[in-house]
Amino acid sequence: MSIDVEQLLQTISKQIEQAMDLYLPKEGTHPSILYEAMRYSVFAGGKRLRPALLLLTTKACRGSQSDALRAACGLEFIHTYSLIHDDLPAMDNDDFRRGRPTNHIVFGEANAILAGDALLTHAFSVIASGDLAAEKKVRLIQEVAQASGALGMVAGQAADLLAENSVIDVDQLAFIHQHKTGDLLRASVRMGAIVAGATEDTLDVLTKYAEALGLAFQIHDDILDVVGDPVALGKQTGMDESLQKATWPSVFGLEASRQQVSKLTDFALSCLASLEPSEAFAELRALATWLVNRNH
Amino acid sequence: MSIDVEQLLQTISKQIEQAMDLYLPKEGTHPSILYEAMRYSVFAGGKRLRPALLLLTTKACRGSQSDALRAACGLEFIHTYSLIHDDLPAMDNDDFRRGRPTNHIVFGEANAILAGDALLTHAFSVIASGDLAAEKKVRLIQEVAQASGALGMVAGQAADLLAENSVIDVDQLAFIHQHKTGDLLRASVRMGAIVAGATEDTLDVLTKYAEALGLAFQIHDDILDVVGDPVALGKQTGMDESLQKATWPSVFGLEASRQQVSKLTDFALSCLASLEPSEAFAELRALATWLVNRNH
Repeated sequence: MSIDVEQLLQTISKQIEQAMDLYLPKEGTHPSILYEAMRYSVFAGGKRLRPALLLLTTKACRGSQSDALRAACGLEFIHTYSLIHDDLPAMDNDDFRRGRPTNHIVFGEANAILAGDALLTHAFSVIASGDLAAEKKVRLIQEVAQASGALGMVAGQAADLLAENSVIDVDQLAFIHQHKTGDLLRASVRMGAIVAGATEDTLDVLTKYAEALGLAFQIHDDILDVVGDPVALGKQTGMDESLQKATWPSVFGLEASRQQVSKLTDFALSCLASLEPSEAFAELRALATWLVNRNH
Repeated sequence: MSIDVEQLLQTISKQIEQAMDLYLPKEGTHPSILYEAMRYSVFAGGKRLRPALLLLTTKACRGSQSDALRAACGLEFIHTYSLIHDDLPAMDNDDFRRGRPTNHIVFGEANAILAGDALLTHAFSVIASGDLAAEKKVRLIQEVAQASGALGMVAGQAADLLAENSVIDVDQLAFIHQHKTGDLLRASVRMGAIVAGATEDTLDVLTKYAEALGLAFQIHDDILDVVGDPVALGKQTGMDESLQKATWPSVFGLEASRQQVSKLTDFALSCLASLEPSEAFAELRALATWLVNRNH
């Protein structure tokens, strides 16, 4: 059975965007600029990879998609807040993201800070509401708070800041990759399994899949920044080098990085192969393969 | 029975600060600057009013103090994050708070933004953990997320920004007071009652107490900025007027503002008077009276 991953991601994006529209405060409510700023970045496109990982994992574990929708939106709100704050002048100082002016360029720095704060807080409100059992909600909140918090994503961002304009070693590079991006990808898969009520054994195997896939995804991103096509990517390449950012290729070389991606992907696929029934995990397998072969 | 409120608040502060120390990531962990920045502002002093309201409400409703500790710390983490972000150059641009340099002055803007983000996220992690029943944790998280989020505290901050350098009417002033500060004070009391498993009737009455007290507290703050003693307050007075900020006294006059505080306090006390057993609510009564008579 051949799976069209691009088609699959588009279907999920549509579903997630409808749900996010429903869960976000409406524009027009006072103070409207806050809600406009939140919605501007939430609906700025993107692969919706985190919600997709969550929803596909829930489905693979025979859970209900509708049970997973709030957690999936919460993840995307948190991912979006992190992009808004990352783009701020005091952080990466980016004026454009995905071809559009960044949040603070359109709404001003103060509103961008507040829109990020509001999205982060709203994520927890959305996950804590709805019909899921309280025990599951609590586990989902623990999971996403740890992954995105002081010892997770924010630690990765702070370490990334520290690494600017300095030579870092492999351990530091791995720390940044693991926490800045890896932790939330890992949480996406784990939360999908938690919604479905997967066994602890299945959860462990899926966690290994997510960790390997998360790192492979980021190394592939680093490689695309070196050899990718700017038109397909929709952004300039060579940025990491010009910013003297430590990346997998800059530390290990391009060929070793490619081998690493391939090894990690094989391992991720072998994790899924150990789960039953095999056909339930076909979409997660296809997603892994697609992620490390994409050109954008 | 006469209650020494200052003594009571000091005892609670000590208890809360010990617990916050326990729940926060340790300094020294990589990237240490993030954890130093979080701790710098968390341990910068303050009345710890929100944890105090929560703990005293739990106690009044015959709940266990130890059950309330995580929620109380979560509230203070959220209050602290809001101060760090409020002080940023793009927001209020304050270099000092309580006589100490603000977070971004010491750690830089980027780390101040991240320390705020991390404290907000950590609040949910701390409340979602521990031994409380899952149903209670979920209610506490819903309560604090709504109070501090897009339709609560952040809405108040965004409205406050919009109001800068413009003439605002009474409704707008009330909106800012209600959301920027009132919502989290209201949540403090409600969360205390939720920890204790109070009945919905008791919760309703305590909510009315909290709303009246919250507004009285803020009007009293506005009054202190006009007539207070800078030495006792530990900060300059006359700031609201020099910044042309709309305040209760600037809109209604000083005398009418004082009458409003007195009326709101009487109402708050009458709410408590309707609850049984009367002596259980003595500390919450004393706190209300102290809050609107303090000179700092």
